[in-house]
Amino acid sequence: MTPFFQTFQDEKLAPQLSGSRSRVTYLVTADSPDEIRRKAEDICAEQTVEFPVDLLPPGVVREQILGRVENISPCENLFSPPGMVSAHVEVSFADEVMTDELPQVLNVIFGNISIKPGIRVLSAAFSEPLLRKFPGPQFGVPGLRNLLKIPQRPILFTALKPQGLAADDLAALAYEFACGGVDVIKDDHGIANPVYAPFYDRVLACTAAVRRANAETGENAIYVPNIMGPHTEIIRRAKFAKDAGAGGYLVCPGLIGFDVIREIAQNPELSLPIFMHPAFLGSFAINPDGISHACVFGQLARLAGADATIFPNFGGRFSFSRAECLQIAEACREPMGDFPSIFPCPAGGMKVDRVEDVLGAFGKDVMLLIGGGLFSHSPNLRENCRLLRSRLV
Amino acid sequence: MTPFFQTFQDEKLAPQLSGSRSRVTYLVTADSPDEIRRKAEDICAEQTVEFPVDLLPPGVVREQILGRVENISPCENLFSPPGMVSAHVEVSFADEVMTDELPQVLNVIFGNISIKPGIRVLSAAFSEPLLRKFPGPQFGVPGLRNLLKIPQRPILFTALKPQGLAADDLAALAYEFACGGVDVIKDDHGIANPVYAPFYDRVLACTAAVRRANAETGENAIYVPNIMGPHTEIIRRAKFAKDAGAGGYLVCPGLIGFDVIREIAQNPELSLPIFMHPAFLGSFAINPDGISHACVFGQLARLAGADATIFPNFGGRFSFSRAECLQIAEACREPMGDFPSIFPCPAGGMKVDRVEDVLGAFGKDVMLLIGGGLFSHSPNLRENCRLLRSRLV
Repeated sequence: MTPFFQTFQDEKLAPQLSGSRSRVTYLVTADSPDEIRRKAEDICAEQTVEFPVDLLPPGVVREQILGRVENISPCENLFSPPGMVSAHVEVSFADEVMTDELPQVLNVIFGNISIKPGIRVLSAAFSEPLLRKFPGPQFGVPGLRNLLKIPQRPILFTALKPQGLAADDLAALAYEFACGGVDVIKDDHGIANPVYAPFYDRVLACTAAVRRANAETGENAIYVPNIMGPHTEIIRRAKFAKDAGAGGYLVCPGLIGFDVIREIAQNPELSLPIFMHPAFLGSFAINPDGISHACVFGQLARLAGADATIFPNFGGRFSFSRAECLQIAEACREPMGDFPSIFPCPAGGMKVDRVEDVLGAFGKDVMLLIGGGLFSHSPNLRENCRLLRSRLV
Repeated sequence: MTPFFQTFQDEKLAPQLSGSRSRVTYLVTADSPDEIRRKAEDICAEQTVEFPVDLLPPGVVREQILGRVENISPCENLFSPPGMVSAHVEVSFADEVMTDELPQVLNVIFGNISIKPGIRVLSAAFSEPLLRKFPGPQFGVPGLRNLLKIPQRPILFTALKPQGLAADDLAALAYEFACGGVDVIKDDHGIANPVYAPFYDRVLACTAAVRRANAETGENAIYVPNIMGPHTEIIRRAKFAKDAGAGGYLVCPGLIGFDVIREIAQNPELSLPIFMHPAFLGSFAINPDGISHACVFGQLARLAGADATIFPNFGGRFSFSRAECLQIAEACREPMGDFPSIFPCPAGGMKVDRVEDVLGAFGKDVMLLIGGGLFSHSPNLRENCRLLRSRLV
């Protein structure tokens, strides 16, 4: 038999590596600085060779394919148990290990180590060559403002619900919202293709309703359907929605994969803004072991190509802190290759009387997603929308 | 305008509901029994209508579309902070809210509430009508045993690595493994489509290598490629692998969506066993707020249609406890409609000398996934495989 070590052929591998590396910063918690170092080295192996490092021969695999600890900086960690220490651990990975396929990029960042305790992804800094392999957000803040013809003011965003309404009843609601001055009207993330409001019927009814309202108001509201569905049906639904006159797509990457966003962003036939929804992604952010709010809802959304990212706002019915929400917003606009800024869409239990507070926190480049709050302010839905819209200046 | 409440039309909705409901049990933690009750009711609303319940008119939406608290049983919870109380909260959801599409089933179980603290999915009990909407595992334990022609003994499973080897070098390894008596040889989950071992080249090389070994040994080893890739490429890769003579598919649903498994299981052109890998799913299981090991790696794997589920074994380099691993194994074989049992595949830092312990825990219907351990036992890889295989009786 061929001894195992002879199978490594540096002369074949080396020419295929560019030397370009992307960096991921982890918050690592352990019971001693030595253990932090051991965990950092474990991340390097687990996320790349997944092999006992002492069995690797010297050479290119060890030097370049294996992750590399770039920096370890001890830090405070309010959430770590007593007696434990924490550090920011920066690890670099060869772009060729990340490849030009998004699922593998996510896999290198956090695939197997999602199963190991004491590790949280804080942020990812992708190399310029790696970013150029991905389409990025096709609209972003400037493109969405252009499409909506809203040069400056904050954007009013709502959702069609509750679950149980028929397609034409949801369309009637969409019409009311659009007449009331709501700019972006999306499907609820829980309404995908139920028998009582099937996708194709709903998209036809809601696009028609918003078109009719726009003709009456002279505004440019858009309807954003939830295109979640069976694996091979998603792109078909997106195409149907685009042809019917929808103004964007709602995508839940936690349920159907981040690469759906990349696929849509890259496909010229589907060219419409993408709104990312956080369903099924909460466990990454709200637990200590996971991925930071800013990374999962900001950096990864943008890398995938989302133009707007929905997340539960502070002070609503969810638990994100003000700081965590502002970190997401910061990740939406921080420099990232040639990618445009994208819209943060704070949501979840928003009330009309909180508008000024929220705008004060996020600034004008924001989409305020208000659902139930539009109904509860007064019995007149259209007037509630108008009131809210009047405050967005 | 149409007042909002008039849009509810029970006579339209009621005939579309079967009355069949599926149940999910959550571990809910809060600071008082009253707060547990409030959280239980919040789950009911958040996962269905996502709307202020006091604004819902009496009728079908409130009675059937809204989730329903079926039971609350106070319980111990070793992981809850001091002063908090916990309970098992059973909630039922109409099958029509879950629909016949897998992403929406997952969405109803844990979509938005993944973002709320103090909630862990313990188990899901799907109604028989709901289970009949899904193909389920097409092979399971009996089908895989039949394919491998191994009626009774535990199955030996390994992975091709490390990352950095070329396609033909990985194929040479596959040949060694197969000659050494390994039954199932999968790609490493981190090797999807790197420049140094591209998917199509690798699949051709590895299928040929395993075929050659089988011709020599008279055994029936299979090669299981990692079909992860861009959204619209995954099914194409599966088809290519099947045509090339692969023996199964490795799928990471955390990275590309659980519905990829369902799609493959339902597509007769792709008929081969599916091996589910836990990459990127760890945060659900290892944190308090998430989804139990048994549910995410057992019940959801089986619902999707996986035939074998890989998870990090106790005592290896990951952190799952013996109890958690055995709960996964139990979920692989507990009654679930007409679905067959599937194989638990304990993995991760397994060593040759732990075989008896592991078999004692899991019994014979198990696939032992051993990677690095096969290399480290002695320098002779083929002999290491033979030694291990000889212990699997």
